[in-house]
Amino acid sequence: MSSPLTHFDAEGQAHMVDVGGKEVTHRVARAAGRIRMLPETLALIVKGEAKKGDVLGVARIAAIQAAKRTSDLIPLCHPLPITRVAIEFEIDEAAFAVVCTAQVETLGRTGVEMEALTAVQVGLLTIYDMCKAADRGMVMEQIRVLEKHGGKSGDWIAKV
Amino acid sequence: MSSPLTHFDAEGQAHMVDVGGKEVTHRVARAAGRIRMLPETLALIVKGEAKKGDVLGVARIAAIQAAKRTSDLIPLCHPLPITRVAIEFEIDEAAFAVVCTAQVETLGRTGVEMEALTAVQVGLLTIYDMCKAADRGMVMEQIRVLEKHGGKSGDWIAKV
Amino acid sequence: MSSPLTHFDAEGQAHMVDVGGKEVTHRVARAAGRIRMLPETLALIVKGEAKKGDVLGVARIAAIQAAKRTSDLIPLCHPLPITRVAIEFEIDEAAFAVVCTAQVETLGRTGVEMEALTAVQVGLLTIYDMCKAADRGMVMEQIRVLEKHGGKSGDWIAKV
Amino acid sequence: MSSPLTHFDAEGQAHMVDVGGKEVTHRVARAAGRIRMLPETLALIVKGEAKKGDVLGVARIAAIQAAKRTSDLIPLCHPLPITRVAIEFEIDEAAFAVVCTAQVETLGRTGVEMEALTAVQVGLLTIYDMCKAADRGMVMEQIRVLEKHGGKSGDWIAKV
Amino acid sequence: MSSPLTHFDAEGQAHMVDVGGKEVTHRVARAAGRIRMLPETLALIVKGEAKKGDVLGVARIAAIQAAKRTSDLIPLCHPLPITRVAIEFEIDEAAFAVVCTAQVETLGRTGVEMEALTAVQVGLLTIYDMCKAADRGMVMEQIRVLEKHGGKSGDWIAKV
Amino acid sequence: MSSPLTHFDAEGQAHMVDVGGKEVTHRVARAAGRIRMLPETLALIVKGEAKKGDVLGVARIAAIQAAKRTSDLIPLCHPLPITRVAIEFEIDEAAFAVVCTAQVETLGRTGVEMEALTAVQVGLLTIYDMCKAADRGMVMEQIRVLEKHGGKSGDWIAKV
Repeated sequence: MSSPLTHFDAEGQAHMVDVGGKEVTHRVARAAGRIRMLPETLALIVKGEAKKGDVLGVARIAAIQAAKRTSDLIPLCHPLPITRVAIEFEIDEAAFAVVCTAQVETLGRTGVEMEALTAVQVGLLTIYDMCKAADRGMVMEQIRVLEKHGGKSGDWIAKV
Repeated sequence: MSSPLTHFDAEGQAHMVDVGGKEVTHRVARAAGRIRMLPETLALIVKGEAKKGDVLGVARIAAIQAAKRTSDLIPLCHPLPITRVAIEFEIDEAAFAVVCTAQVETLGRTGVEMEALTAVQVGLLTIYDMCKAADRGMVMEQIRVLEKHGGKSGDWIAKV
Repeated sequence: MSSPLTHFDAEGQAHMVDVGGKEVTHRVARAAGRIRMLPETLALIVKGEAKKGDVLGVARIAAIQAAKRTSDLIPLCHPLPITRVAIEFEIDEAAFAVVCTAQVETLGRTGVEMEALTAVQVGLLTIYDMCKAADRGMVMEQIRVLEKHGGKSGDWIAKV
Repeated sequence: MSSPLTHFDAEGQAHMVDVGGKEVTHRVARAAGRIRMLPETLALIVKGEAKKGDVLGVARIAAIQAAKRTSDLIPLCHPLPITRVAIEFEIDEAAFAVVCTAQVETLGRTGVEMEALTAVQVGLLTIYDMCKAADRGMVMEQIRVLEKHGGKSGDWIAKV
Repeated sequence: MSSPLTHFDAEGQAHMVDVGGKEVTHRVARAAGRIRMLPETLALIVKGEAKKGDVLGVARIAAIQAAKRTSDLIPLCHPLPITRVAIEFEIDEAAFAVVCTAQVETLGRTGVEMEALTAVQVGLLTIYDMCKAADRGMVMEQIRVLEKHGGKSGDWIAKV
Repeated sequence: MSSPLTHFDAEGQAHMVDVGGKEVTHRVARAAGRIRMLPETLALIVKGEAKKGDVLGVARIAAIQAAKRTSDLIPLCHPLPITRVAIEFEIDEAAFAVVCTAQVETLGRTGVEMEALTAVQVGLLTIYDMCKAADRGMVMEQIRVLEKHGGKSGDWIAKV
């Protein structure tokens, strides 16, 4: 029986798996995650959105660019012609957190879950970078794929 | 009074802050995070360490390389001559998780917290990538700086 | 009415626009620009073409490589499988300038104007770099798209 | 007599010149350039600054990141530990143009003129990218070094 | 008669050749090369495979990633959507060498010989890097394309 | 007794070794290698040097740029502020080969052997790329470090 870890061959060596036989289909992935911080740090971000110091505007650009670098960062990822990236930030007042959601799409032979997750990670990291002088204790969490569509395995939606 | 968000100038515009006046000191940062998964996915990783399919060996290389790309990924980060990167993976059997810890060092004018966090994020993402065919619901969490040393602000250690 | 700035969504946030619904067509773009310099600097370049010190040969390679980096440099650009890049340099004796023209082609879902412009910019920058020890006052100008073909919007040719 | 084109050796072959004997000094360069457009395109950018669609915010991030990529784009440039990057955009209402000015600093063995020019070029290119759906005929011009300080050659200021 | 050096145009200038008219076909290339070393260095590598210090595991990841960077490293290479990369290492006990073989595949308009060769070169370089403290005199040799398939020129197999 | 493979820690895990305690010294490395080809292919290259189709001019630029990418390509290499890169090509008429020699220098905490070797490899690969339409059977060989200077281990010169 073959291993469920498809990134290794029969000898257990890492390889970039053959996707040449897969069909080109419309593929969509949505991932999310959040960064939790001090109430006063969150207040600085919220204030910046409206006025000076647009932390989330900078983080959005970093997240979009990171999606395009995914196959360069993750060793066994295939390069993919991304056709869409959308990044959304929401303020979670109750948790004192910023939630980042990334949606990535392609017409390709493999899914874009890694691209969506990489965008979220770099979006959150950029928020950390810009606020770290005020708050070094921020924590990134709940980073996961929310849903994916397209390809042979079809639709997948995370359980709440 | 100046804003605690030093990555914005007096007009609220993003800039790469001037570190030319900072001293070159030995700087160390340690960051960590974990990826939680199904018990059977964790078992595959543990088995691979000993035999075929070394997921953590691949993730370690990806994490080290990501530390070197930090200033390319995070828009306002300064380029830094990293002098050391060490990545450690631990199996948390109770939480069904792999914990990734990164230690980064430099002799430079700014800290290496972002380099350590970026290494952790890409290390966890690579684990996700290699196991996603078996388990799409993995969650990355508790990603944070553990401690930093060096520079004007001196030592900082996260509260437990 | 939707904004003509398609790189922002309805909330005014930057995104990489969805080109998944666009057809794959043969797309061509031509861009140009020039760098003006001292007569003696231009003489050095002209001499180098024939003999030692081939400034334009180096700039041509830099320009071709830059076309391939476009989506990495311009945040909201889509990655594209470029099928052709040709760079031409002409000496404008009257203006004491070198004119750089770039033609880029693809079979893709978006145009290659940005790739052609990026090639021109980096071609001119490389000339500046190689001649700056002799002439720091060089000026780059008239950098623009000359024409584009393919895609839904069809042909466009710049007015003289 | 040696050629003023220092990027070529005695045989006329390109090389990355030896800067090992140069002193580490504080080096500053300022460069600028502008993009001319239709009055209605400029109005869209001005409106976006205040409200939705922050073209200049995106271009600023692209310009800062490009400064860090300079030695990767320009073949014979030395890698440099940039200590500061500041990008300014001004609206030139009379010329229907956006002016981009970049200041880059380092403590290093070579100047940062190329880093400042590259930041300006990519800043202007990003504006072109974001507005091209509305106005393909935009022209980039007057791109030049304004001043440089530090190093053996000392201060240089462009003539008006 | 046109030159056999297709990477130059009629004027002898380098260009990225037009592949827009070529068909998308399944293309495969296999390349190989070896690194010769002291018997005791080879023993360290062989020992590491089984236990601690997996030199070849690290080199394999570097080789796979390098295949994805080919068009970024080789000036006139076209970017290609690689669909598979497999790297094999064999110990040649007689020659005191490690042999690296790379197979790369795509569905594209040009061949993947350069991707396979680049993977081999970087795989061998990584072995050199990891063993150089023990053995600086290692030599890389016999690096060549073994076979290629697909495209207009069809099959090609190296003579022994 | 510690392993001679310093890129692995006591547990046998790969790491980027700590060079923070090493002194900054002037470091030089020279590496070389050659590509063997059909006599008629070599004739095309020699002819191009003098007239149209400067294969070696393009390969020289690729080699210089590759030296700057070394730490990005080789997983455990430290980033280094290169102060000089010089590439030389010689025609070996007897062996029907082009010999590439690279000299790299830095003022840093680690040596530049990997930078010199990477420059040679990419220089040879670029020659292969440009001539492969005429001659697929070219072989790269004798790629090795010739000498290194500086650092604690001091001078090292390869035996002939």
